Amino acid sequence: MAKAMAVNVGRRLEKLRSLMRDSGLKALLVTSPENRRYYSGFAASDPMLTESSGALLILPGREFLLTDSRYTLAAGQEAPGFEIVTTGSGGLGQALGGLVGKGAPLGFEDNYLSHRLHSSLCRDHGLGLVPCPFDPSAPREAKDPDEARLIRMALAITEKAIGLLWEELEPGWTEARAAWFLDRSFRELGAEGPAFETIVASGPQAALPHAVPGKRRIREGEFVVIDCGARFRGYASDITRTYLCGQPARKWQREVYRTVREAQLMAIAAIAPGVPSREVDQKARGHIAAAGYGELFGHSLGHGVGLAVHESPSLNPRNARTLGEGMVVTVEPGIYLPGQGGVRLEQLVLVTAGGARVLNGDRHFYDF
Amino acid sequence: MAKAMAVNVGRRLEKLRSLMRDSGLKALLVTSPENRRYYSGFAASDPMLTESSGALLILPGREFLLTDSRYTLAAGQEAPGFEIVTTGSGGLGQALGGLVGKGAPLGFEDNYLSHRLHSSLCRDHGLGLVPCPFDPSAPREAKDPDEARLIRMALAITEKAIGLLWEELEPGWTEARAAWFLDRSFRELGAEGPAFETIVASGPQAALPHAVPGKRRIREGEFVVIDCGARFRGYASDITRTYLCGQPARKWQREVYRTVREAQLMAIAAIAPGVPSREVDQKARGHIAAAGYGELFGHSLGHGVGLAVHESPSLNPRNARTLGEGMVVTVEPGIYLPGQGGVRLEQLVLVTAGGARVLNGDRHFYDF
Repeated sequence: MAKAMAVNVGRRLEKLRSLMRDSGLKALLVTSPENRRYYSGFAASDPMLTESSGALLILPGREFLLTDSRYTLAAGQEAPGFEIVTTGSGGLGQALGGLVGKGAPLGFEDNYLSHRLHSSLCRDHGLGLVPCPFDPSAPREAKDPDEARLIRMALAITEKAIGLLWEELEPGWTEARAAWFLDRSFRELGAEGPAFETIVASGPQAALPHAVPGKRRIREGEFVVIDCGARFRGYASDITRTYLCGQPARKWQREVYRTVREAQLMAIAAIAPGVPSREVDQKARGHIAAAGYGELFGHSLGHGVGLAVHESPSLNPRNARTLGEGMVVTVEPGIYLPGQGGVRLEQLVLVTAGGARVLNGDRHFYDF
Repeated sequence: MAKAMAVNVGRRLEKLRSLMRDSGLKALLVTSPENRRYYSGFAASDPMLTESSGALLILPGREFLLTDSRYTLAAGQEAPGFEIVTTGSGGLGQALGGLVGKGAPLGFEDNYLSHRLHSSLCRDHGLGLVPCPFDPSAPREAKDPDEARLIRMALAITEKAIGLLWEELEPGWTEARAAWFLDRSFRELGAEGPAFETIVASGPQAALPHAVPGKRRIREGEFVVIDCGARFRGYASDITRTYLCGQPARKWQREVYRTVREAQLMAIAAIAPGVPSREVDQKARGHIAAAGYGELFGHSLGHGVGLAVHESPSLNPRNARTLGEGMVVTVEPGIYLPGQGGVRLEQLVLVTAGGARVLNGDRHFYDF
């Protein structure tokens, strides 16, 4: 007898099925790792677990988890309520063929299925794959309370690690040493590890938003941009702080830092359900432009965070969609002076009925 | 002026172009991370770097690396000789459109291109994508001396870490603690980190070939299967040892262990250029079956290791293809007794003209 499904998973499936009904879709194949986990609870994040060995099939009254024998046991434990189908030597195609009528429309995630597997499912197994007419990730935008709690825990670990680094970091450390200090702390503090590659960018490197931490030694008087996040029970966190190595700050440093922080606070104050994402972006962007740094803030203001580090919604100048309750987004303006240095500050914010609730402690900022 | 291309990369491209000529293909799009690195030297392994923001285009007389502005600088440094094309807001499709004639056959890796991007490239940009008629990964099977050296270095770090663990591990440690000990050691010894998720499986868990290390405490008298590998400058290593927690071994433990080790040595002795992979598998499998454990060895004997942890060739009962000089393969027989425990032993072997050269030190085996 199948065990009862987790309440959250039940609610999520209800939402998914209502999207399916609205678009007239009777069967959906879920292959992205995040959606697989979200809708079933099946956590296997083994990179060996490809789309062909871990997929959900959602039908109007039944839900299946198709996986190979290596994961059958874990699937049964983690996805109670799902019928577990062990794909044999015939693979996903054969298993699906037994559950879905040949040629019957079967929605799929076209950004998470390779051209090769798609061809094989259609040609060799006669399946009627159609790109899913809605975005099956969309329900993930608004977090349920359990998800918000896990994100907070991931963030708390990250902040604790940054606090430890703050105490130890001094001139002469390489960027790579500081990055490893953080990654190691995440694990030792109970996280699964970093949710993405930790960025530690010092001096002129701090002007590159995606710098890779290297052997460069951090020097007195330099800005160090630190962008990192622990992952806890599948959920990511994401935070950026800019560390000044050796006070006091020079004039340009104070001015740039202050401008970024003000831009961040103005954007956060603008966050509320119903507000278009681009308006939040504009608050920060406008302030930075007014201070004369408009050309030096080249990326989006923020993005959703959840099972994926970067997910919908994006806070950028073009996104007209409105924010909704339960969304968790980053607010991370930056100013980058080529060859000289940069500042980025990133908070993680929960959208509530009453406006933005900052999930970070108010720590590791300078009061210039 | 473009800097000179690395000698290795030049040779690899020559081989690739000869495969293209043989199959009449004039243009090839390379999107898998390993092939991208192999044929260009471009190392960016950032998981944010999707197929749409990092691809090679190989034409008869020119080679292009298409990436977005975040990676342009690194691409120029790591892939000298390649023409770097920064994909703009029009993305990969628009950039390719300017370099390849509309509708002209353009080979692609159909297992490394999503259905969505494929559709967009064909429909929106009029590109004539055709699945590459040969396997562009095939030249990676035979390692050049630089690759073999990097694999050895990755392996040396792994063995060093196992040696440290051997000294410290004792009853009461959780599996997760042992796994973290290894992962941490890899980084501290100079590796990029683990090449795959470290397996530490104790007691009955050792009977599951893909167990995830958990909170289970290792007990006196149990077998602990430890399967791990550091990654060094992009190259993976892969080793398995079975640790006996607290001597002396019981009779069944000695017998199972000895059988696995004998099977391994027999398989290694059979390795030479020109030998079909399945014959090597059969040496080990036959020995295990003769000892009465045939049903309890359910996986392949081994696989190639290089930029990917699992790559061609596979040593399994069905692979009739022959081994060739320069291949690096694992030899990892195992016996798994459900509910009781298991043993797996894995060596990494270079195929040379004179037969197998074991890349491991002959360490961390029991002489039962």
